[in-house]
Amino acid sequence: MDHLHLCPKFEAAFELLGKRWTGLIIRVLLTGPKRFKELSEAIPHMSDRMLTERIKELEAAGILTRHVYPETPVRIEYELTEKGKSIEGIMNEVQKWAEKWVE
Amino acid sequence: MDHLHLCPKFEAAFELLGKRWTGLIIRVLLTGPKRFKELSEAIPHMSDRMLTERIKELEAAGILTRHVYPETPVRIEYELTEKGKSIEGIMNEVQKWAEKWVE
Repeated sequence: MDHLHLCPKFEAAFELLGKRWTGLIIRVLLTGPKRFKELSEAIPHMSDRMLTERIKELEAAGILTRHVYPETPVRIEYELTEKGKSIEGIMNEVQKWAEKWVE
Repeated sequence: MDHLHLCPKFEAAFELLGKRWTGLIIRVLLTGPKRFKELSEAIPHMSDRMLTERIKELEAAGILTRHVYPETPVRIEYELTEKGKSIEGIMNEVQKWAEKWVE
């Protein structure tokens, strides 16, 4: 049983996407750019502190970008990058599996 | 922005599958039933204590089953259930995404 050749990349992807709330945050952003408040309201059980942390991680991982609109007050929106949007395939598979198998 | 209707199932699935090492363990088992030692050798960076913990979780979640063969010494094998095998679709999607996007 040789070591799985793709293990580091596969493992890294799973670890990044598997973190609590990450899947949901990405799903909400797949419906379009959102402000912090909109994200927070769409996932009520998640604390703002956690959302702030996940946004930082996803930004560092190149999955979302932050747009600052110099209005008064300043408007900040978060949007998925191409890398982020292409996670949709995984999301759909998880959704299908969850519908069939999760009680 | 209404709350995502499938959020509890989707969230539960993501949380279960996203735990460290779980994705890799399932991928190894997708190649067929394995003994503890075979699983442990296939994923060298994972401790036996962690493997034991993950096996318990996956068994409780109905994703794998444990077969005890009354030989001498006793042989124990772990095998994916139908529920476990159907995770392959998610795995393939994660693999595709990781190959394209993970540095």
